[in-house]
Amino acid sequence: MPKLVEYENMAPRAKAVVEGIAAARGIEPADINNVWKALARHPAVMEQFAAEMKQAFAPGALDPLTKELVYLAVSIANQCDYCIASHGTMARNKGMTDEMQEEFMRVVLAALKGNKIAMAYRVPVDKAFEEA
Amino acid sequence: MPKLVEYENMAPRAKAVVEGIAAARGIEPADINNVWKALARHPAVMEQFAAEMKQAFAPGALDPLTKELVYLAVSIANQCDYCIASHGTMARNKGMTDEMQEEFMRVVLAALKGNKIAMAYRVPVDKAFEEA
Amino acid sequence: MPKLVEYENMAPRAKAVVEGIAAARGIEPADINNVWKALARHPAVMEQFAAEMKQAFAPGALDPLTKELVYLAVSIANQCDYCIASHGTMARNKGMTDEMQEEFMRVVLAALKGNKIAMAYRVPVDKAFEEA
Amino acid sequence: MPKLVEYENMAPRAKAVVEGIAAARGIEPADINNVWKALARHPAVMEQFAAEMKQAFAPGALDPLTKELVYLAVSIANQCDYCIASHGTMARNKGMTDEMQEEFMRVVLAALKGNKIAMAYRVPVDKAFEEA
Amino acid sequence: MPKLVEYENMAPRAKAVVEGIAAARGIEPADINNVWKALARHPAVMEQFAAEMKQAFAPGALDPLTKELVYLAVSIANQCDYCIASHGTMARNKGMTDEMQEEFMRVVLAALKGNKIAMAYRVPVDKAFEEA
Amino acid sequence: MPKLVEYENMAPRAKAVVEGIAAARGIEPADINNVWKALARHPAVMEQFAAEMKQAFAPGALDPLTKELVYLAVSIANQCDYCIASHGTMARNKGMTDEMQEEFMRVVLAALKGNKIAMAYRVPVDKAFEEA
Repeated sequence: MPKLVEYENMAPRAKAVVEGIAAARGIEPADINNVWKALARHPAVMEQFAAEMKQAFAPGALDPLTKELVYLAVSIANQCDYCIASHGTMARNKGMTDEMQEEFMRVVLAALKGNKIAMAYRVPVDKAFEEA
Repeated sequence: MPKLVEYENMAPRAKAVVEGIAAARGIEPADINNVWKALARHPAVMEQFAAEMKQAFAPGALDPLTKELVYLAVSIANQCDYCIASHGTMARNKGMTDEMQEEFMRVVLAALKGNKIAMAYRVPVDKAFEEA
Repeated sequence: MPKLVEYENMAPRAKAVVEGIAAARGIEPADINNVWKALARHPAVMEQFAAEMKQAFAPGALDPLTKELVYLAVSIANQCDYCIASHGTMARNKGMTDEMQEEFMRVVLAALKGNKIAMAYRVPVDKAFEEA
Repeated sequence: MPKLVEYENMAPRAKAVVEGIAAARGIEPADINNVWKALARHPAVMEQFAAEMKQAFAPGALDPLTKELVYLAVSIANQCDYCIASHGTMARNKGMTDEMQEEFMRVVLAALKGNKIAMAYRVPVDKAFEEA
Repeated sequence: MPKLVEYENMAPRAKAVVEGIAAARGIEPADINNVWKALARHPAVMEQFAAEMKQAFAPGALDPLTKELVYLAVSIANQCDYCIASHGTMARNKGMTDEMQEEFMRVVLAALKGNKIAMAYRVPVDKAFEEA
Repeated sequence: MPKLVEYENMAPRAKAVVEGIAAARGIEPADINNVWKALARHPAVMEQFAAEMKQAFAPGALDPLTKELVYLAVSIANQCDYCIASHGTMARNKGMTDEMQEEFMRVVLAALKGNKIAMAYRVPVDKAFEEA
C-alpha cells in the first residue's frame, strides 16, 4: 500500500485538494508533504480529510499553537511516528519554544500515567464529576 | 483492586499527600477525589504521581487551560473514562467554553483520523520533517 | 452481545470445557467465572482459548506468580477492566503481597512512560540492541 | 524531534543523570543508550524518568528478572519497538533463557486474547472479583 | 461531559441531523440512539460525523454486512463498549448469523495475535509486500 | 529479538509448520514470509498461531475476502505495519479492487471516529442495544 503519487501524476480531484492546501500554506503544489501524496489514490478520503483539517484549524476560540499541541498530544498517545514528526515541526513553526515543549511533554507524560492509574486501580468516577 | 481509602483511614504518608493537594485546591482533605483514595494503598506510587502532577501543572510557559486541554486530549486518545470525566470538569473550571470544547473536539478527531491515515497508507516521513 | 450462559444451559462442547477448568481449579462447574459463560455461545473460540490458557500456565521455567504478573501487566496496558479484576484476584491468590503489588505497579508505570518517551522523541534503536 | 545529543555535548544536568546511570551499570557515560541522548534536550523530564526507573528497579520483593519481564510485557502490549529491543536485551542479560522467553510469549499472547475476548463479549465482572 | 439532549430539546441544526438519520432508518426522531443525543451539544461535529457515516455506508462495491463487520472489527480492536453493543446489534439486523459471528471472532482474534507477534518479534516487512 | 531463521536452518517442528503453510499456498517452503522465519525460534507459539490462522480462514459462512478485510481492519486499528503490508497484499490477491479499498478505508475511518466520539462524550449504551 505505500506508494506515493507525485502532484504532476495525480487525478484532477486530488490535484484540486493539493492546490487548495498549497495555496493556504504559500508553497508549491509539488512540495506538498507525503501524506497527501499517499491519499491521492483515494480522492474521496482525501477530500474529506482535507475539509476536516481545514475546519479543525480554522480561526476560532482556541489559538493556533494550542490546537497544534492538542494534535501533537493525540499523536503521541496514538504513537503515530509520521504525525509526531510532521506536527512537531508545525508546532515549532507556530511558536513552540524548547521550554514550552518540555512543559508539554511533562503534561503528556503525567496524563499517560494518570490514565493508567485510573484503569489499574479501577477508580470509580466521583459524583461531582458525573454531575458536572 | 478497587477499594477506596477515605482520608481519615489513610496512612500518614498518604494523608500528607492529600493534605498538600487539598491545600493547593482550597478544599477539605476529606473531599479529595477518588483517584487519591485509590492510590492511598500504595504511598510510594502516590507520592511520585502527586509530585509529577504538581510539576506538570506548575506555572510556566504554557497557560493552565492549554495544559488541561493537552491532558484531556491524551485521556480521550487513551480512552480513560475517569480522566475524561475529571479533567473535562477541570477544563471547564479553568475557562473552557462550549465553543472551545467543540473546536477542541474537532482537532482531537482530526488528529485521530490523521494518525490512522498515516499508518494505514504507510506514509514515509518527509525529509523536511526528519531534518527539522 | 452481553448474554451469559449458565453451566446447566450450555451445549455439550461448552460444558466439557467448563468441566475441565473446574476440575483443575477444584471448584464446581456452576461456579465458573463469567468469561466462560459468555464464551459458551461460541464453542470453537472457547475451546481454543481454554487450550491456550492451559498451555500458557502449564508448569515450566517461569513460576506461576511471575506468569500472573505478566498477564496482569498486559491487561493494565490494554485497559481491560474485567481482566484487571480477575487476574488481580488470581495474583493475590498466588502470593502477590501488597509490597509486591506496589513494586509491580512502579515497574508497569515506568514502562508505560518509557514506551511513550521512546515514541515521542523518536529514538532510534541502538546498534547494540539490534545485534543482541 | 529526533535529534540525539552525545554525552560530551550535554548540559550539566543531563550529564549528571547519564553519569549516575553509567556508574550503576559499570559503563562509560559516552556509551549510554539512545533514549538518554534524546532526553538530554529536556533535563527535567530526564531527571524524573531516571529517578522513576531507579526506584522501580531498586532491590525489593520482586526479583530483577521478573521486573524485566513485566517491563517487556507492557512494551509489547504498547508496541514500542525501541523498548522491545532494549528491554529484550536486558531481560536476556538478567537470565531470560530461550525456554523462558517462549513461555513468556505464550502468557503475553494469551493475555492479549483474554483482554479482547472480555471486551468483545462485554463480560461483566464477577461479584467474587469485585469483592476480592 | 455525559449529558444527553432529547430530540425535542435540540437546536435546529441538531434536529435536522437527527431527522435525516431517522428518515433513512424509518424510525421516529425521538427514538434516535444515544450517540446522537450526546453529539447534539456540538452541531458541527455532529453534522460532519453524520455525513461521514452516510458516505461510508452508501451503496457501493462492498455489501452492507461486510461494512458492518469491518466497523465492528475496528470497534473491538479499539475496545469501544458502546460501539460493540450498537454495531453488534446492527450487524445482526443486517444478517450476521451465530455461525458468521463465531467465524468473525476467530478472524478478529487471529489478527490481534498476528499483530502482536509481528511487533514482539520485530519482523521486517518482506520485499514482496513492500513492492506489491 | 529480530533474528530471522531461514527454512533450511529451522528445527524439525518449525519446518513442519512451514511445509504445511507452503503446501496450502502452492509456494516453496524457502519462500515463506518473514513472520514465520521469526516465529521459528519458538515452535510452540508457531504451531499454535499456524493452527489458529488455518481455522480462522477455513471455508465457512464468511467469504475469504470479507475475512481478509476484517483482518486488515484490525491491523489498521492496532497500527501493525507488517500486518498492513502483508494482509493488504493478500486482500488485493483475493479480489480487493481500488474502489473496494477506498470504501473499506471510509468505513474504517468512520468507525475510528465513532469509537472516540462514544468515549469522549461518555455515551451510555441504549437499552435497545443492551437487550438485543
